[in-house]
Amino acid sequence: MTELRLNAITRDWVIIATERAKRPEEFAKPHRETVPMPCYSPTCPFCAGNEDFTELESYRLNDNRGWRVRAVYNKYPALFPVGEAIRKVAGINRSLSGVGFHEVIIEHPRHDLTIALMEIEDVANIIRVYRQRYAEIRHDPRIATIIIFKNHGQGAGTSLEHPHSQLAATPIVPYQLRIRLQEAIRYFDDTGECIFCRTIKDELASRERIIAESEHFVAFIPYAALSPFHTWIFPRRHTSCFDDITDTEIGDLAKILKTVLAKLYYGLNNPDYNYTIRSIPTAEERTDYFHWYIALIPRTTLAAGFELGSGMYINTALPEESASFLRAVEIPANG
Amino acid sequence: MTELRLNAITRDWVIIATERAKRPEEFAKPHRETVPMPCYSPTCPFCAGNEDFTELESYRLNDNRGWRVRAVYNKYPALFPVGEAIRKVAGINRSLSGVGFHEVIIEHPRHDLTIALMEIEDVANIIRVYRQRYAEIRHDPRIATIIIFKNHGQGAGTSLEHPHSQLAATPIVPYQLRIRLQEAIRYFDDTGECIFCRTIKDELASRERIIAESEHFVAFIPYAALSPFHTWIFPRRHTSCFDDITDTEIGDLAKILKTVLAKLYYGLNNPDYNYTIRSIPTAEERTDYFHWYIALIPRTTLAAGFELGSGMYINTALPEESASFLRAVEIPANG
Repeated sequence: MTELRLNAITRDWVIIATERAKRPEEFAKPHRETVPMPCYSPTCPFCAGNEDFTELESYRLNDNRGWRVRAVYNKYPALFPVGEAIRKVAGINRSLSGVGFHEVIIEHPRHDLTIALMEIEDVANIIRVYRQRYAEIRHDPRIATIIIFKNHGQGAGTSLEHPHSQLAATPIVPYQLRIRLQEAIRYFDDTGECIFCRTIKDELASRERIIAESEHFVAFIPYAALSPFHTWIFPRRHTSCFDDITDTEIGDLAKILKTVLAKLYYGLNNPDYNYTIRSIPTAEERTDYFHWYIALIPRTTLAAGFELGSGMYINTALPEESASFLRAVEIPANG
Repeated sequence: MTELRLNAITRDWVIIATERAKRPEEFAKPHRETVPMPCYSPTCPFCAGNEDFTELESYRLNDNRGWRVRAVYNKYPALFPVGEAIRKVAGINRSLSGVGFHEVIIEHPRHDLTIALMEIEDVANIIRVYRQRYAEIRHDPRIATIIIFKNHGQGAGTSLEHPHSQLAATPIVPYQLRIRLQEAIRYFDDTGECIFCRTIKDELASRERIIAESEHFVAFIPYAALSPFHTWIFPRRHTSCFDDITDTEIGDLAKILKTVLAKLYYGLNNPDYNYTIRSIPTAEERTDYFHWYIALIPRTTLAAGFELGSGMYINTALPEESASFLRAVEIPANG
């Protein structure tokens, strides 16, 4: 038998293959002989020394060794920071000019690193640049929503191996976010509490799905994880807007993000993954009902007709087993 | 510049890469030397002669040559047709036993066929079996929604090459469907018309995005197609429930479905695709606001962090160009 579980935050039903679930290690990426990556690639636009290959730089974080993280315009942007967002209405059709921001955040001068293997301070620098660009772009009146995301590996949609993330700032609020806000409001009106805060309390009480925790953050597999090793990292403090993160919290988030990604790296052999920072629309700042967070999705399975046709998911891993497996993964001292 | 378009039916915003759009033929699957498939494979559980390899058969459509289409239980079901759907509530967590149906529809006795290359009558037989199983399962009081879908090719999530579709009948209404119903109701209340009927009228008037049309169906690329060559096939007659399809309409749907799939096969070199039949929850039968239809998604691109983090899509093909390209694809006389 299987079990359907309702994800209270996304409202998606997930079919969890309880009895037939695969063992966690079966989701590891197959080992392949690969040529080690060089620390510098002469043709890579993101490598230190090749700064001229990139588009306009919007921000640079330096230390005494030179730049550590750079934000640059995307060479093939989906959105352009020029002009006004002009709306057109024709019958039931609605369109809007593609105004917005689409930037690349180059995470490190070196070509061959990945967050799982970086120093904590390097990871903190990446998050600092996320916050910096988020805070700057947020005040552009044309922008409604900012999405920070990372595609790691070909199976997660990237073709460039140099470590990088992206930021997309859209002139509309995506429908998916609208719906989640509505559901969070409904829960708040019903109970007087934030559903994200409730989830943290419940997960910390049961401990079954916790992967790691720190002073300011909790990383866990959701009760109704949409796919194997789907992970959420929630700030303990109730805060709706990502750029509200403090310096202290950035240091702490760097630690837990690196820990979770290193556990995936060592436990599942460097799987492809996406992560995304989910935050409130830019026009809002503080709400009682919404909580920013990081969603991390290892790409161990492929959405097929059932998922596309229903919006439901089939998860062949048991969330409690996945969490227990990741808790036990040890990160080498030099890792 | 790009353009954001709102899909009025799904309510998703899509970023259409208008200027930088790829040419339609760039989405073709790369040509590879492949060994032709045999018409019979001794190890294939779906081949004629190997009927004993499958699980319980729920339906068989015969003619004087033997069976033409079989519906069988899935060997690795996500849902099981036994017992009651028991609900559990614990704090904010909700679960339900995995009661339902998960069947495979073996589309043809031969191993090496695909709908694009079948006789019209063979395609009609497949749709007859869809309707048959839909109609039978719909009356099971434990079932709330039936999803019929097909995964064609590895990139669309199938590992078995013998032509087959699937049916999943769930004990809940997926949230995605709930939301679409709500939006369809809102449009109906606002205008007194079905948004699907409105869309057909608009598409037939503009003709820009039409791929093919027949007496009872219209195939077109949506104005805000979520991905390249994303196609909808709508019945012209307003009808909410798939099993309301008539015998005449089945013959006509077989023709247009084969036409569209053959245009993809010849125009884009047999791309991987999913299709799904979207129908009303089983408890309802006739509504003024909802219209069943087929959604077809060629898997030419991969959803990455932006899509996962926003629910929005970036479509690098211009819907009008994709439709124009497919209209022009000629199907060989023996194809």
